[in-house]
Amino acid sequence: MFKKIVIGGTFNRIHKGHRSILNSAFQIGSSVVIGLTSDRFASRFRIEKVPPYMDRKNNLIKFIEKFKKPYDIVEIDDSYGIATIDPEIDCIVVSEETLLRAEEINAIRFKKGLGKLTIVVVPIVLANDGKPISGDRISSGEIDIEGNILKS
Amino acid sequence: MFKKIVIGGTFNRIHKGHRSILNSAFQIGSSVVIGLTSDRFASRFRIEKVPPYMDRKNNLIKFIEKFKKPYDIVEIDDSYGIATIDPEIDCIVVSEETLLRAEEINAIRFKKGLGKLTIVVVPIVLANDGKPISGDRISSGEIDIEGNILKS
Repeated sequence: MFKKIVIGGTFNRIHKGHRSILNSAFQIGSSVVIGLTSDRFASRFRIEKVPPYMDRKNNLIKFIEKFKKPYDIVEIDDSYGIATIDPEIDCIVVSEETLLRAEEINAIRFKKGLGKLTIVVVPIVLANDGKPISGDRISSGEIDIEGNILKS
Repeated sequence: MFKKIVIGGTFNRIHKGHRSILNSAFQIGSSVVIGLTSDRFASRFRIEKVPPYMDRKNNLIKFIEKFKKPYDIVEIDDSYGIATIDPEIDCIVVSEETLLRAEEINAIRFKKGLGKLTIVVVPIVLANDGKPISGDRISSGEIDIEGNILKS
């Protein structure tokens, strides 16, 4: 078991892919720190409007309370946030598409003399059409949060 | 927790790097399958002589019995072994230097219609000189299994 796991994201609606990462993190960690993107940072690479930080945070809390484990939600304004700062963090859970970011975080930690993190790479969850589930595809009404096709 | 974790290696002497991978695998998995290289395969990329399969296997059993969890040791003759065949395996633990192999295993599983594995990447354990601990460096008498420098 890991002492303190870090994950990050925008968590606009808790879709199947989010749940896979959250489940893994809470199952193998004694505690979890979640870096939740600020409104400014979340909108930077998105076309669709992202719900406000507090809505996303409350939604997330509703989902993770069932794990009955200590957690912390911190606002992040870049992709590194607390992961390159906290010496107690020992593991990061990412999806296949963000593995490179985790490797970058480890390179920064190494340079700073902090221990590298164990990286847990969770497979991307696919929608029924075999393409990845993503917040953008859900926001545009293409699929639902379970990966069912709504329009083609 | 994962149901069935796979790891692989030659496990010639159980050094600090091996222990890090074995500890992670047994801590986050309900059961572990260990692909242990055959004598033929283990010697393929090594200069130093590798101890016989049965010696390595018995040594490994001595170390992992303390975890008190179900395990299986299978002889492997290539880098893929059981990891690309067994549908029940859900996770693979590798070190930083073998991450690419794990990604290749997932690509093969995907092509075969098997579920991709969660990949757990454990940081390489460094010897006291800041270079990685490896079986070759131990065999040549350069470092001991704890990463202490014996000769420079």
